[in-house]
Amino acid sequence: MRVLSGIQPTGRPHWGNYFGAIRQYIDLQEDNDGFYFIADLHALTTVREPAQLRENVLNAALDLLALGLDPAKATLFVQSQIPEVSELCWLLMTGTPMGLLERCHAYKDKKEKGLAADAGLFTYPVLMAADILAYDSEIVPVGADQIQHIEVCRDLAGSFHHTFGETFVMPKAKTLDVGAKVPGTDGQKMSKSYNNTLPLFGDVKKIRKQIMRIVTDSRAMEDPKEPEGDHLFELYQLFAGPEEVSAMAEKYCAGGFGYGEIKKAVAEVSEAHFEPARQRRDELEKDIDTVNDILNAGAARAREVAASVLERARSACGIR
Amino acid sequence: MRVLSGIQPTGRPHWGNYFGAIRQYIDLQEDNDGFYFIADLHALTTVREPAQLRENVLNAALDLLALGLDPAKATLFVQSQIPEVSELCWLLMTGTPMGLLERCHAYKDKKEKGLAADAGLFTYPVLMAADILAYDSEIVPVGADQIQHIEVCRDLAGSFHHTFGETFVMPKAKTLDVGAKVPGTDGQKMSKSYNNTLPLFGDVKKIRKQIMRIVTDSRAMEDPKEPEGDHLFELYQLFAGPEEVSAMAEKYCAGGFGYGEIKKAVAEVSEAHFEPARQRRDELEKDIDTVNDILNAGAARAREVAASVLERARSACGIR
Repeated sequence: MRVLSGIQPTGRPHWGNYFGAIRQYIDLQEDNDGFYFIADLHALTTVREPAQLRENVLNAALDLLALGLDPAKATLFVQSQIPEVSELCWLLMTGTPMGLLERCHAYKDKKEKGLAADAGLFTYPVLMAADILAYDSEIVPVGADQIQHIEVCRDLAGSFHHTFGETFVMPKAKTLDVGAKVPGTDGQKMSKSYNNTLPLFGDVKKIRKQIMRIVTDSRAMEDPKEPEGDHLFELYQLFAGPEEVSAMAEKYCAGGFGYGEIKKAVAEVSEAHFEPARQRRDELEKDIDTVNDILNAGAARAREVAASVLERARSACGIR
Repeated sequence: MRVLSGIQPTGRPHWGNYFGAIRQYIDLQEDNDGFYFIADLHALTTVREPAQLRENVLNAALDLLALGLDPAKATLFVQSQIPEVSELCWLLMTGTPMGLLERCHAYKDKKEKGLAADAGLFTYPVLMAADILAYDSEIVPVGADQIQHIEVCRDLAGSFHHTFGETFVMPKAKTLDVGAKVPGTDGQKMSKSYNNTLPLFGDVKKIRKQIMRIVTDSRAMEDPKEPEGDHLFELYQLFAGPEEVSAMAEKYCAGGFGYGEIKKAVAEVSEAHFEPARQRRDELEKDIDTVNDILNAGAARAREVAASVLERARSACGIR
């Protein structure tokens, strides 16, 4: 199955991104034909500083490759390397009802908050539809908040088919597993907007300090504590094996420990977990040429598919 | 000066189009570097029948070449042959305030009439801005109703410059001369929306019949009549030389003629005027390969310019 996933190069990934999305869609490369793109044209709606955007795009590529995206199994490329997508975007735009875009969350939320929206935010579901349709994508793994965009994409493809005949492969959303809770440093759900994130990459000592500052309650050391629902325990669970988790649960129930001890344990298992990725990332960072070669090879492969889809679409609607 | 003009391939041109626009912008090829494109991507917002769109595009090319657009002096191409424009459109879109597009006439009018608008109509001023900026256009000859779009283009270029630095040539609108009145068959201004047009090309006998059916008043033959403000006289003026016009004016003042006589005169001068274009068109129609060669050569020239402008824009905003 052709699986498509787009990654916004708007900031550094955190544990929440990793367990909630990145790890899951990288896993899909094993049994599928994965197409992964770094969405710089989308990022442009928010990142208005060119050096920053370039750095973000490179960082996103390094992150994904370090975390296990394998160019031998999957196709990794940068969105703007595929000009066919912008063309397809316009073809779809001419048949996009205003109401469809007016109902999309990202725009609606911003408008309801009284913030000035721009046409990039308003029309980006159309660009996203072009991204999906351009590669004959069958499966698009998304978080629950993105399902609407896949619906828009299916609507646009359907209405294009209605006017011009069958042209596109109709994609399906695959909702990512939100099973594992990933609490942030304040105990709430980890999210950039809560400013409570722990990064995947970066200075290990600094990250350990952030872990050691995770908020806890002020129960006495000797009190037994329930592991269920405890955010430090939840973080530990993300990384530790079943036996380690059982041992930790027993410790909680027995009491007689300080939270500092648990934090240290969280730091250790997380560092061990990310260590191989961190090493790969360091190596790749010293060899940017290889990274660019991977992106260029991916783009060449993606363009081949996109060019043939665009040709179908152009010919269907009478564009020579 | 680089002069840019886009032609909507949405229907056959009439006398009003010719005197009000086509003739004027073709004339600009003499002292300028004229870029003329057939706007099929724009037409797609209204022409949803592929065979019709293809036919319209070819007809537009034949019309322009027949009417004197000279590929040795100017660059003629089809909009969709320049994929750089769609890319540039997205780059501009990310910085386009919604309010700017909401104020544009075409969208506003449609919305005020309670008609369903689509995102193609809504965003087409952005595509138009991309069309203009992509060729480093300095002058854009437009009718009064299009001046707003050039203002939007200048606004978008200005705001891009503000964010990313100088990138584009700032275009200026050149308002087309509306001096000569071109009345339609009902005496009102000739316009497709009044259904009173006389075509430039087509079956001469049929056009003559349309001319002979032009409405007139019912004054007696012998009455003297004022040439000024008479629509048959105005039509005659468009084609006849100064001496013929004086002679016709005298005839009006003297009276003693039927309107049929004037209509015949209008038919004769207009047929003579368009005869060379009609012949060229017939010849070109028999040699579509040459027309396609002209369009392809034009596209190659236009792409060269557009590619370098797009490269400037991409690099300015941090797109690799």
